[in-house]
Amino acid sequence: MQTQTQNSQDCISSDRVEGTSVYGSDGDKIGSVDCIMIEKRSGQAREAILDVGSFLGMGGSRHAVPWQKLEYDVDKGGYRLDVTEEQLKEAPSFQESDRERTISDQRHRTAVYDYYSTPVYW
Amino acid sequence: MQTQTQNSQDCISSDRVEGTSVYGSDGDKIGSVDCIMIEKRSGQAREAILDVGSFLGMGGSRHAVPWQKLEYDVDKGGYRLDVTEEQLKEAPSFQESDRERTISDQRHRTAVYDYYSTPVYW
Repeated sequence: MQTQTQNSQDCISSDRVEGTSVYGSDGDKIGSVDCIMIEKRSGQAREAILDVGSFLGMGGSRHAVPWQKLEYDVDKGGYRLDVTEEQLKEAPSFQESDRERTISDQRHRTAVYDYYSTPVYW
Repeated sequence: MQTQTQNSQDCISSDRVEGTSVYGSDGDKIGSVDCIMIEKRSGQAREAILDVGSFLGMGGSRHAVPWQKLEYDVDKGGYRLDVTEEQLKEAPSFQESDRERTISDQRHRTAVYDYYSTPVYW
């Protein structure tokens, strides 16, 4: 049973998540959260889109990561993802200019869940 | 069973939801989505925080609404909430300056679910 305190603390605003740093398994910052992909029908967060390697919002790549792979690290004040920066470079990614096409590409989504060894939800 | 097409269309980016217009039961615009409150543990969207009556982001009030009360209206290109602007004025609300205190206030959240006749999830 949840207490009032637990309950009042267990939601976070989407605009707080966006921009939050993401740290790799070695503790180094590997990117930040660009946005959250939310399933329209259920309202379930499915993937986080990470902004990796951009400077002032320019030139970075986007990496979709299954939401449940991100773990909030209170000490770091950001999310922890259990890959290194090198491993992230090998993960499925896309350019912001390809965003609309990619996030609606089921093959890309399947590749993401496969890469992160995450059971698919569909 | 979902088809690839259905699946590829059934997620939306949090930064697309933010700023989307919200229309009342009479079809008039009553506000816009400020952000989505997401349950940390489950990743489930629980409430939308609506920005009501602000001009250039100033002076508006914030209204938490259970996420499932918002229905996307393709024709309107926005969400539909089954209340009028007058009814929304009577609904639980807060000022942006009170945001942090209010969104962690279980009494406020309870009042929101009560006002919108929505079963609580906690």
